[in-house]
Amino acid sequence: MIIVMGNDASEAQVEAVVRKIREAGLEVNVSRGTERIVVGAIGDERKLTEEMFESMPGVEQAIHVLKPYKIVAREWHREDTVIHVKGVPIGGDALQVIGGPCSVETPEQMRLAAKGVAEAGCRLMRGGAFKPRTSPYTFQGLGIDGLKMLREAADAYRLPIVTELMDVRMLDTFLAFDVDVIQIGTRNMQNFDLLKEVGRMKKPVILKRGMAATISEWLMAAEYIAAGGNHDIIFCERGIRTFETAYRNVFDVTAIPVLKRETHLPVIVDPSHAGGKAWMVPALARAAVAAGADGLLIESHPNPCEAWCDADQALTPQELKGLVDTLDTIAQAIGRRVDRWTPSARAAAA
Amino acid sequence: MIIVMGNDASEAQVEAVVRKIREAGLEVNVSRGTERIVVGAIGDERKLTEEMFESMPGVEQAIHVLKPYKIVAREWHREDTVIHVKGVPIGGDALQVIGGPCSVETPEQMRLAAKGVAEAGCRLMRGGAFKPRTSPYTFQGLGIDGLKMLREAADAYRLPIVTELMDVRMLDTFLAFDVDVIQIGTRNMQNFDLLKEVGRMKKPVILKRGMAATISEWLMAAEYIAAGGNHDIIFCERGIRTFETAYRNVFDVTAIPVLKRETHLPVIVDPSHAGGKAWMVPALARAAVAAGADGLLIESHPNPCEAWCDADQALTPQELKGLVDTLDTIAQAIGRRVDRWTPSARAAAA
Amino acid sequence: MIIVMGNDASEAQVEAVVRKIREAGLEVNVSRGTERIVVGAIGDERKLTEEMFESMPGVEQAIHVLKPYKIVAREWHREDTVIHVKGVPIGGDALQVIGGPCSVETPEQMRLAAKGVAEAGCRLMRGGAFKPRTSPYTFQGLGIDGLKMLREAADAYRLPIVTELMDVRMLDTFLAFDVDVIQIGTRNMQNFDLLKEVGRMKKPVILKRGMAATISEWLMAAEYIAAGGNHDIIFCERGIRTFETAYRNVFDVTAIPVLKRETHLPVIVDPSHAGGKAWMVPALARAAVAAGADGLLIESHPNPCEAWCDADQALTPQELKGLVDTLDTIAQAIGRRVDRWTPSARAAAA
Amino acid sequence: MIIVMGNDASEAQVEAVVRKIREAGLEVNVSRGTERIVVGAIGDERKLTEEMFESMPGVEQAIHVLKPYKIVAREWHREDTVIHVKGVPIGGDALQVIGGPCSVETPEQMRLAAKGVAEAGCRLMRGGAFKPRTSPYTFQGLGIDGLKMLREAADAYRLPIVTELMDVRMLDTFLAFDVDVIQIGTRNMQNFDLLKEVGRMKKPVILKRGMAATISEWLMAAEYIAAGGNHDIIFCERGIRTFETAYRNVFDVTAIPVLKRETHLPVIVDPSHAGGKAWMVPALARAAVAAGADGLLIESHPNPCEAWCDADQALTPQELKGLVDTLDTIAQAIGRRVDRWTPSARAAAA
Repeated sequence: MIIVMGNDASEAQVEAVVRKIREAGLEVNVSRGTERIVVGAIGDERKLTEEMFESMPGVEQAIHVLKPYKIVAREWHREDTVIHVKGVPIGGDALQVIGGPCSVETPEQMRLAAKGVAEAGCRLMRGGAFKPRTSPYTFQGLGIDGLKMLREAADAYRLPIVTELMDVRMLDTFLAFDVDVIQIGTRNMQNFDLLKEVGRMKKPVILKRGMAATISEWLMAAEYIAAGGNHDIIFCERGIRTFETAYRNVFDVTAIPVLKRETHLPVIVDPSHAGGKAWMVPALARAAVAAGADGLLIESHPNPCEAWCDADQALTPQELKGLVDTLDTIAQAIGRRVDRWTPSARAAAA
Repeated sequence: MIIVMGNDASEAQVEAVVRKIREAGLEVNVSRGTERIVVGAIGDERKLTEEMFESMPGVEQAIHVLKPYKIVAREWHREDTVIHVKGVPIGGDALQVIGGPCSVETPEQMRLAAKGVAEAGCRLMRGGAFKPRTSPYTFQGLGIDGLKMLREAADAYRLPIVTELMDVRMLDTFLAFDVDVIQIGTRNMQNFDLLKEVGRMKKPVILKRGMAATISEWLMAAEYIAAGGNHDIIFCERGIRTFETAYRNVFDVTAIPVLKRETHLPVIVDPSHAGGKAWMVPALARAAVAAGADGLLIESHPNPCEAWCDADQALTPQELKGLVDTLDTIAQAIGRRVDRWTPSARAAAA
Repeated sequence: MIIVMGNDASEAQVEAVVRKIREAGLEVNVSRGTERIVVGAIGDERKLTEEMFESMPGVEQAIHVLKPYKIVAREWHREDTVIHVKGVPIGGDALQVIGGPCSVETPEQMRLAAKGVAEAGCRLMRGGAFKPRTSPYTFQGLGIDGLKMLREAADAYRLPIVTELMDVRMLDTFLAFDVDVIQIGTRNMQNFDLLKEVGRMKKPVILKRGMAATISEWLMAAEYIAAGGNHDIIFCERGIRTFETAYRNVFDVTAIPVLKRETHLPVIVDPSHAGGKAWMVPALARAAVAAGADGLLIESHPNPCEAWCDADQALTPQELKGLVDTLDTIAQAIGRRVDRWTPSARAAAA
Repeated sequence: MIIVMGNDASEAQVEAVVRKIREAGLEVNVSRGTERIVVGAIGDERKLTEEMFESMPGVEQAIHVLKPYKIVAREWHREDTVIHVKGVPIGGDALQVIGGPCSVETPEQMRLAAKGVAEAGCRLMRGGAFKPRTSPYTFQGLGIDGLKMLREAADAYRLPIVTELMDVRMLDTFLAFDVDVIQIGTRNMQNFDLLKEVGRMKKPVILKRGMAATISEWLMAAEYIAAGGNHDIIFCERGIRTFETAYRNVFDVTAIPVLKRETHLPVIVDPSHAGGKAWMVPALARAAVAAGADGLLIESHPNPCEAWCDADQALTPQELKGLVDTLDTIAQAIGRRVDRWTPSARAAAA
């Protein structure tokens, strides 16, 4: 950590800073410039906070030099991590497209949705049983019944399932239904008690980015999970909140290369929530793949117009299939490929 | 709700929209302009979502005309609501200043903190026992021990307590310690399961604004609590996230008059978290009072430099007292006053 | 335009609104709902502003139904516009990569830069002679000398030039040097006098997006140019300002499909300024092409480390060439191609 | 400047950084920590840019230690600067309220506007003759005719005038009309050629904050003016752009104490543009005064509903007068006062 003293800091104030650093067990380097004295703390600065020094008289600013995250950092783990979900790899050369509806509605809708997802070649299925909705007066998800419908529909096509966990008290239920990948939603990215709980589990976690979370905060949220022992974390960019009102969120495509540099963990993208409109999904999905994403979470629905939520952002089964084909072409242009199952491969695995 | 058709929408597409509105039990008004056909849905549009229509062919845009919130809306409840916390009124003519440390540390620190809060004339005390921290490696709060220290220190000065609830599983503990006001923090503003739980309780709730929450989302989060039966909700503006990096957050002072117009519930401000530096607190607190806030949540600590978290934003007991005096002068300039207890009043109530 | 009355609006207030609409020459549709009266103005609402009505007693909100832009709107001009710059097409199936340094420094640097641009197959060259710099104490560009160096270096490889105009008083100089494409920078997107001046010229204009400009404001800035008679406008997305500090700007890739839907004019991307680091450029450039951009503006420099400004964001000539190859592969994956000149084609055209 | 090396930086890379610092004429301090080597550049780092180092191999990050601004910095000029406009002081103990309409419309409107401004006790008048409008199809201001009407109306009440300059070519006209204070608008805060020109003049300048300008960029824009020799600069906060859509801008009240700490120059606030609605103006104006602003720029109009632009944000003359009275009470609560002229004082000065 670097502590910059004000231009009228006294020697006693510099001494106090030096003493505080030494008390924390770190060593000190004092550099006296023409306009400023700069004090460096040498050692594991993760024990120090900027506020510890910025509250001291004579201090102008304290600046971290080391990254605050460790387990998730590529700095300490150079190779890409590949996470295996019942034999389906996430991370590495092959990209996964995870399809399925925003919310679970009926067994029939789920049966058709799973069929569409499988026929598009996808190897994982998503569906929301517990829905975080802005209004208390709108549909909140089918809950446990929804989990059951999702499980059954996906099993028929041998698709591992991804679904959102909102409440720590539902963890046992998620285990009972053997949910394959637990999704932590945008609004819960900094629900630290929830992060700690999934950190104790042995299930892969998709961690969506908070609406206004910085890359650093997002990595720290993952570090919460990792610190509990669960290192199977998948980052999911889903658009950030900005001043722009022409679309729901701004898909932050830059986050992909930046995260891939900062962490060894896989990074996927949810273009459906990012744009908020079905017609934007193909362009955003293609951009995600071209920028290096390890997968996509795409909303699909057998009959989007009749969907109970986010009706305007789901693709039809046909659109999903067509998009997966294009994504594979783009992936190949940069030396990767979409990991697709043919119907026969699926049958053979049965 | 207003549905604007695209300039090349067909009659059949207009008809489909009209049918969908009627199916939802509302009436229809079709207005045919020179460039656009506009369809109005007449009735309780809270049943409709914009996506229901924006996914239909030929529709350009659907726009809500009614506000999505109801119980918290001033539109249906014209008079200001005053919330009573063990005899201390929040809302109405008198302003409350809620003092106390960011986090509970030791019995001695809490004893001195409570003394400072009482001597400044404050009638409520705050203190964090469960701390939402960005890093899993920093101090996470003393938990139940902290609740106990807060309760004891505050009781000695007859100060009702305000403290943050992060985890639904802690609700019984909060009841056991008879926490007087439950604070829902910024990162949990849209933790809907938590909102539903506090909605079932009979305890006043301070609902902090999410870091990037719009006024409308904030009101809807309150509506979640209210829909459960608990109408004792206090909004707390604490700064929003913007592009500016010179201070931690941007204190959105405009939210005060806007909320006061939209809702009948009290609105307070946390200038300590908004600015992030103790030296900014007086100016921001004064601005909040001048803009019409019903109270303030101010961090104070017997020895800020030694605080275990946010050391650079707490006021000393002396600074707190001085600030409360100035705030009262400003409150009086706009026909209000700070509700302060003299030592004798406090003793008399004992 | 739709005018929503407050729930306690009087008949007289509704009448006043109706009268005001009729005075402006539009027709009126009044829809009386259970909770609100909604007044529709039928006709060319571009004459009306929301403030005209929102200042009237009893009015809650006024909402535009029509888009405020006309000449640049795809609604009135369905086919893509292709702009020709000395025989080089911008827009249409072929993508242009415009290479060159951030700032013009020396004749030798420009000679090498032009060579690198040409060898990468690019058909247009960029270079800044007038530089908008945040600090008055940093290099402000070589000015007219710089224009001369750019012109000479580019001419040697038959590359039309793109350069930024900051000051209306420099227009004649730009004409004297026959600048082929005039760039309007981010900080001048709403310098309306400058927009009006380039609107009177017969030169293609690259209009960069303002740092916090909405899509609608950007289209309106283009409409300023178009209204003057110059319809050869190229939109250039270069990243927007958000709360994120891990990179200079957030490249708003969603703007590409949205603009392509709203306007018939070409849309290019500047990935160098968007990310601010050379190592991010390939990923962002690939994403831009995959999302449907019509071209790219990429900083390249014979020796990036020695560049006089933005040293950390320029590609070397070799990196530029390698990138253009990959971009072409991605373009082909979506049925387009990068428009590249081979050395022989360049020689033949001489 | 502090240069942080990556954790695998080689000795040769460190050496290269050291050499580059020395070549720029600064001295070097190398601090070798357990995880990082940190190189300090000692001397006037304003010659260095972060990019100079961040483009070098092995460098992780370069961080400025000194502020980039100098003339406007309080660090080098401790006392508050008071700017005198024809005998009216801006800065210091007394606050100025500058009233007047958004745009100049007719001689009669201006006569009534000036009367209202004078009767409210204001000592300066504003009015826009050149209007920056988002759409080319809306009223663009009366131009020179408007300047004339403003001058005449204000002269009748001995009110110095404030008006916006958008185009460098209008400078001579502004001098011809003896405009007393030149306003640089939000959209031109980084129109550097315009800043340089007003920097050469001997007229006070009001520099409005850019819509998404950081405090640092704003100070640097002022430094552009100051570097030209004109030190009479008044900062004007007018709201920033954020994600919030319930009001036009977010009035950044924190900017007031922060600027007052960073610069010795006066800071005023435009609450009319910040909120965008007349009913918000009183609360925002009161907050500005309570937070320490040196003045206010408030839109007033003899008949707001009929105003040609921003009709919904102007106060009536009566509202302006009432507000000025309240502001004075708040100013006095913090030991200041609003500088008001009584009718007799105005007459006596004639």
